Amino acid sequence: MIKFLLENINIKDENLIEKAFKGVIKEKEEKIAGYYDLPFTSKELLRDINFDANEIVVIGIGGSSLGTKAIYSMFKDKFKIKKMHFLENPDPIVLSRKLQNIKRDSLFFLVSKSGKTIETISIFKKVVEYFGFDFKRDKNLIVITDKNSPLEKFAKYYDLKFFNVPSNVGGRFSVLSAVGIVPLSVAGVDVSEILSGAREMIDGFFARKEDHILKKAVFLYENREKYNVNVLFSYGDFFEDFNKWFVQLWGESLGKKRDEERVGLTPVSLIGSIDQHSFLQLIMEGKKDKTVTFLKVDNFGVNLKIPDILLPYLEDTDFVNGTYLAELINKECDATYEALKQQKVPVDMIEMKELTYENVGKLIIYFELLTSLVGVLLGINTYNQPGVEVGKKILRSKY
Amino acid sequence: MIKFLLENINIKDENLIEKAFKGVIKEKEEKIAGYYDLPFTSKELLRDINFDANEIVVIGIGGSSLGTKAIYSMFKDKFKIKKMHFLENPDPIVLSRKLQNIKRDSLFFLVSKSGKTIETISIFKKVVEYFGFDFKRDKNLIVITDKNSPLEKFAKYYDLKFFNVPSNVGGRFSVLSAVGIVPLSVAGVDVSEILSGAREMIDGFFARKEDHILKKAVFLYENREKYNVNVLFSYGDFFEDFNKWFVQLWGESLGKKRDEERVGLTPVSLIGSIDQHSFLQLIMEGKKDKTVTFLKVDNFGVNLKIPDILLPYLEDTDFVNGTYLAELINKECDATYEALKQQKVPVDMIEMKELTYENVGKLIIYFELLTSLVGVLLGINTYNQPGVEVGKKILRSKY
Repeated sequence: MIKFLLENINIKDENLIEKAFKGVIKEKEEKIAGYYDLPFTSKELLRDINFDANEIVVIGIGGSSLGTKAIYSMFKDKFKIKKMHFLENPDPIVLSRKLQNIKRDSLFFLVSKSGKTIETISIFKKVVEYFGFDFKRDKNLIVITDKNSPLEKFAKYYDLKFFNVPSNVGGRFSVLSAVGIVPLSVAGVDVSEILSGAREMIDGFFARKEDHILKKAVFLYENREKYNVNVLFSYGDFFEDFNKWFVQLWGESLGKKRDEERVGLTPVSLIGSIDQHSFLQLIMEGKKDKTVTFLKVDNFGVNLKIPDILLPYLEDTDFVNGTYLAELINKECDATYEALKQQKVPVDMIEMKELTYENVGKLIIYFELLTSLVGVLLGINTYNQPGVEVGKKILRSKY
Repeated sequence: MIKFLLENINIKDENLIEKAFKGVIKEKEEKIAGYYDLPFTSKELLRDINFDANEIVVIGIGGSSLGTKAIYSMFKDKFKIKKMHFLENPDPIVLSRKLQNIKRDSLFFLVSKSGKTIETISIFKKVVEYFGFDFKRDKNLIVITDKNSPLEKFAKYYDLKFFNVPSNVGGRFSVLSAVGIVPLSVAGVDVSEILSGAREMIDGFFARKEDHILKKAVFLYENREKYNVNVLFSYGDFFEDFNKWFVQLWGESLGKKRDEERVGLTPVSLIGSIDQHSFLQLIMEGKKDKTVTFLKVDNFGVNLKIPDILLPYLEDTDFVNGTYLAELINKECDATYEALKQQKVPVDMIEMKELTYENVGKLIIYFELLTSLVGVLLGINTYNQPGVEVGKKILRSKY
């Protein structure tokens, strides 16, 4: 179960709620965005996953790895998930360490929607050389890419197993497509639970049982000039990669030119309670240009009690003795929420009863819907990223 | 060597340069901020480091761990530095995993400036219970804290080794004090090189050989309303913790109330080239409210060549074949810099010839000086953090 709580979030124009809702229905019905269907269609992928592995390597960047990594990081400490390695960045220092820790008999996923991402293919070539892969003999490589992409053709040429991403599903909306579902399923994640949670959230939304999403989207749109920074403050280290997934989703989807106007909302990722000792001061006393979404888990499923140890001169900290660490981190979350609420900062709380696959499926759809709704209201194309092409052209000119 | 390059950064009021410069001289001379002296005084700490360890555990949060972790993460893959564990967050899932990986005979550093940070002392109590520490017998615990703090008294009570942080050095400015220098030195980092680089930068600045810092500070101040988001775009995974250190330094120092006005600049951390596939679209086409500082290393010291492998159908990626991965990531940095420069985004480049201790010492002082200069111009107290006290009070009321 997930509870959604909103404070200091009031909307002016109620009509925008229907406008936003109709906009996403149109996107769904006209197949402008394919992610709406994934919770229903991705079940079929499971039939084709008839392979196993000891360890898994995902070679991919941006939307090709962020979502998979987000889910892996949330569950790797709690469940018996197989070790996953992510080769994302062409940083030679860290890549070199990672290669040393990878076993040759791992299952390698080569993930690129366009099938020609320069970082990904370059790292792949390095992997091929490092392990001495021979595609005619070695079959522990699976390709995930767009239909008819160069990478699909490469996979077909060597008779490698491959999966397609639906053409109307962009990278940052692709975690519930083959991009995330296939490697996570092999790793031992119960992806059917994730999809089931996603279906429940999307059905609930279209049945108008989750109107808090509409309300929040309209608020963010109406106040886009005043509150142009949107913070996701997640309590738990294991949320760090989820936050990065959110940053891509929010920043890349909504930062667009609309005719001559530049629109967009700036995502910021914070981890509690660590960033209470960092960025929080700026939210509390700096310019009031931020909304803050808190994300917390009631029951961590790991019980660590703060022991009832009395240390001389440190009596001031004894008020937490005998309570659980989970209580401390969650009460810090609540206290910060209340402090910001008192400051009239627009805050909302996403409270998961437990960190389950189902809840994470809901969470993913929640943020994707919120992004689409704000995109509709901004009148932009939420699903492209034209701004990054210039840099790609300049890069080529440097060789 | 570090090169500093500025583009689209022009200042209006030249007088502000002298104002800012005089402001930090005053802070230095009147000992308002003690960090100016650390590059010179912290050498003395090395005399007192007469202990060793196989592995190191730092228990601390915010300013008590971010700087140490930043330096560790930059060098752990390149040099034979001893393994360091950081216990920061009272997140039971991740803490429980970390505890399982820690050896009892590690050297434990308990770091809290105030000596009563609730997360830190609570985690410490857990560590004491987990390993069955007896302070009369076990001496593998070193305390770093303010003079006369409760934690210093605790250390004295059990005759534990302790180091002090100068009272005029705040947590986020403390990496070159005992907070960072002592654990890093035991880990095998050549801290004297870091301090030497720091001295060179601070001497150069006060000798007016680094006026680009003044220019940038004045620009950020003059354009604080227009460009209220300051991105640090660092190319290399190993910079991620350094970026977090920057986020705390910038956000917590500059987000302040000045009389009734709320001021502050919002730091954002990006890692290249990964975030070219994420946040970059927002900078390129979204609202023009961001400055972008690029940070890169010319020579990574690890040579990974992209092999000259020709893969059928993937010919489009062959233009990088036979070149180094370091070239790819750095040319991506340059291409993005140029693309933003063309868009008239205020950008600057910090280019380190090599990732050396000395250059990192310079880098730390560079960002600290920049922060102080902008703080002077904003007319705020750069060194306190009054805004986070409310939450602490609310937290107590919940027990």
